[in-house]
Amino acid sequence: MIDKVVGSISEVIKKAGLKDGMTISFHHHLRNGDYLLNMVLDEAAKQGIKDLTLHASSIFECHEPLIEHIKNGVVTQIMCNYMSKTVGSAIASGIMEKPVIFRSHGSRPGDICNGKTHIDIAFIGAPTSDVMGNCTGKRGKTRFGSMGYAMADAEHADTVVVITDNLVEYPMLGASITEDFVDYVVEVESIGDPEGIMSGTTAITRDPVRLRMAQMAVKCIEAAGLLEDGMSFQTGAGGATLAVSVYLKERMLKKGVVGSFIVGGITSYSVDLQQSGCFKALLDVQSFDTGAAADLETNPNHIEVSGRQYASAVGKSSCMTRLDCAMLGATEIDVDFNVNVHTDSTGNIMGGSGGHTDIAEQCRMAVIIAPLFRNRLPIILDHVRVISTQGQYVDVLITEKGVAVNENVVKENRVKDLKAKFIAAGIPVVDIHELKKMAEEICGIPKSAPKGDRVVAEVLGHRGEHVDYIYNVPRS
Amino acid sequence: MIDKVVGSISEVIKKAGLKDGMTISFHHHLRNGDYLLNMVLDEAAKQGIKDLTLHASSIFECHEPLIEHIKNGVVTQIMCNYMSKTVGSAIASGIMEKPVIFRSHGSRPGDICNGKTHIDIAFIGAPTSDVMGNCTGKRGKTRFGSMGYAMADAEHADTVVVITDNLVEYPMLGASITEDFVDYVVEVESIGDPEGIMSGTTAITRDPVRLRMAQMAVKCIEAAGLLEDGMSFQTGAGGATLAVSVYLKERMLKKGVVGSFIVGGITSYSVDLQQSGCFKALLDVQSFDTGAAADLETNPNHIEVSGRQYASAVGKSSCMTRLDCAMLGATEIDVDFNVNVHTDSTGNIMGGSGGHTDIAEQCRMAVIIAPLFRNRLPIILDHVRVISTQGQYVDVLITEKGVAVNENVVKENRVKDLKAKFIAAGIPVVDIHELKKMAEEICGIPKSAPKGDRVVAEVLGHRGEHVDYIYNVPRS
Repeated sequence: MIDKVVGSISEVIKKAGLKDGMTISFHHHLRNGDYLLNMVLDEAAKQGIKDLTLHASSIFECHEPLIEHIKNGVVTQIMCNYMSKTVGSAIASGIMEKPVIFRSHGSRPGDICNGKTHIDIAFIGAPTSDVMGNCTGKRGKTRFGSMGYAMADAEHADTVVVITDNLVEYPMLGASITEDFVDYVVEVESIGDPEGIMSGTTAITRDPVRLRMAQMAVKCIEAAGLLEDGMSFQTGAGGATLAVSVYLKERMLKKGVVGSFIVGGITSYSVDLQQSGCFKALLDVQSFDTGAAADLETNPNHIEVSGRQYASAVGKSSCMTRLDCAMLGATEIDVDFNVNVHTDSTGNIMGGSGGHTDIAEQCRMAVIIAPLFRNRLPIILDHVRVISTQGQYVDVLITEKGVAVNENVVKENRVKDLKAKFIAAGIPVVDIHELKKMAEEICGIPKSAPKGDRVVAEVLGHRGEHVDYIYNVPRS
Repeated sequence: MIDKVVGSISEVIKKAGLKDGMTISFHHHLRNGDYLLNMVLDEAAKQGIKDLTLHASSIFECHEPLIEHIKNGVVTQIMCNYMSKTVGSAIASGIMEKPVIFRSHGSRPGDICNGKTHIDIAFIGAPTSDVMGNCTGKRGKTRFGSMGYAMADAEHADTVVVITDNLVEYPMLGASITEDFVDYVVEVESIGDPEGIMSGTTAITRDPVRLRMAQMAVKCIEAAGLLEDGMSFQTGAGGATLAVSVYLKERMLKKGVVGSFIVGGITSYSVDLQQSGCFKALLDVQSFDTGAAADLETNPNHIEVSGRQYASAVGKSSCMTRLDCAMLGATEIDVDFNVNVHTDSTGNIMGGSGGHTDIAEQCRMAVIIAPLFRNRLPIILDHVRVISTQGQYVDVLITEKGVAVNENVVKENRVKDLKAKFIAAGIPVVDIHELKKMAEEICGIPKSAPKGDRVVAEVLGHRGEHVDYIYNVPRS
């Protein structure tokens, strides 16, 4: 009987015809628990392959071996939506000749679907696959939940390799990616550690300052008139933004509000909100913890969406089109509300847009939650070091010392008159310049870290358009 | 709140920018109960639009008004996979200048996906849709089940219009086609009569001759060594082929065989086989009756597959790739095993490949079940009037007077030594020439009906390649 099973990664690299100069892709649903990217690059290096473009949706700490592959010329270009600090610092130090191309979780599938980026071979890690490549993230020992970010790769790559640690009989039903897109299937001992999914997401903060900001966020949602039946909501997985879920639940239950959907990276807190009756549906492009992944398997109101459906501008609409409000983070924000989530204050790369810019650009009220300072460094600047998300899409900044409203938002569907609504609701609205001053009074005016003159990365926005460059950090 | 709802078909035709010369597409899951194609063409005609190419997966009796639209120049070309006799006879009589292009259920999505056919506007009938176009055939008063044939249209048409008679709140979960592919949503009173789905499918034949042929088919499956655990099966919905399901169930239960999957048009008989434990899974590209449609909604072992996944050569594999055996019909078959399912003996168009050619070309044993004669007209000829499926892909012909085995099959995965296996199992193997003679002894040698000299249709095969032409029927 025909099947697509190949004995090893080594063999599949040969069969798939991996050659110098090709573009290979990976998805990051296993986040810091991913084994795949290292396994494939190690094998490519062994086979003497050079000059690869690595088109990965995100790069985590676990991918540190990538640095050696860059130094050895195995990988000569990177495209990704997020890059954590170890590889990020190496890139910022200038180890790579070609700039990294940062996209967003929306523009990556967008540029794949519209043909701007071409993938020669996509490697897809699957917690369960049958021998023809029908595969899912919902079942198996390495269950990670939604496969949303891998779908565009599967649909558009020339060659698609599924790597699984749970090979099952044909036909596996309920596939996220179907056999008609898959060329080869490889079974390995383990594709990753599902506990690594939790990286970047944390338990809810216990810091009383951050908890107050989270409470303020719920007040802002209500004051904006969004805390009503049918509301839709998104939050990141950071400590403060995550805490919003908890206060939001309290308020929704008290007020008897039934929302429509939560979208995005889905956490166990989102699951709790849905199961408490606060929201009808969870639209899951990436399950942020093992609890969310487990819920996706069994809860009919928790569904998987593709990256394209989630947030891409290439579709006729996306889940973002009807999103009311989103809670987002920032490493820096400037007085024009431009947000940096790519670098720290020294210019070292330690993040990326992920969905940040897609969400801000499209939702009706994009809320940044950030403390006035971290490690005695003010967060609000005259100019952010790198623009990840343009200020024109950011509606509100919540700090522990007050809430700033951006009156220069250009989104058609934005909630209007936010400032007046907030003031009427007793929310302490403060001009962003005042907030900046408050931080500087405590911390002093920060000395801007030096910026090199070499572009080490380019930041593209929601539609794949140029937004900014990231420069190297000069060695001291 | 943003939505895509447009008030009427009239209005959506204007908004979608329907213009002279465009290609519009339809899917046929409501079969002879479909209201959509007529509604849209009537409105296009009212608006004075001309020269449309109608790219419909199938044309049924209910689409008779199409004849007027052809005569009036509203529709000047047709592409389809099946055309029933009223429109078919009109085409055969020569009412259309450009030949009809007949594809198969596999090559239609194939040619849409690879860009050979371009669709300007796809009209998709949906028993349930939300206001953003997330839609399904599994729920709603006009439930028809799988939407498999509409998926390629949705994914590749420039503009996609969903027409529904059950408009629901956003987000509708479990969509077959998602919002990122949909431009407009129109709510109408009714998209069709679900009872019309049954057309073409019948109750199981009571004719003892045909029942014997069905029993013989099960013997052939067993003799070929296919009646084993893991077997896969497909059958059409005609009276005799359908009866095979019943005998197969008996035999599988008796032998304790558990098959893998049934694929294709799924009937209530397929559902019964699955629920009796004979097969693990149903892969459903089109639900052939309301019972099958209902089962698709609730049975996790009964899944929807796209036309591309079902049978297209454009994918990396399809459900056909691992199909063991299929029961198919024929209006004519010739001594080289070429099969005609497009025309009757007079040359009038009254059918089409549907999945016939895809199935035969790919499955391990393609079995034609046909009586020696119908209405005293022999079925076996020296040359079929139209080649729908090439003889090189047809393994076996079962008649009431014996079983013919084709020794010139070219498929790599075919079951070998069928003739010897059948003889060893006591199956009455007869040379196809002998079978032809038997029929002629009873009916006489049929006089071939005259063939015109004008091409009225072209038949394309599984890969979209030219197979044959259909000529006009001269008026007597």
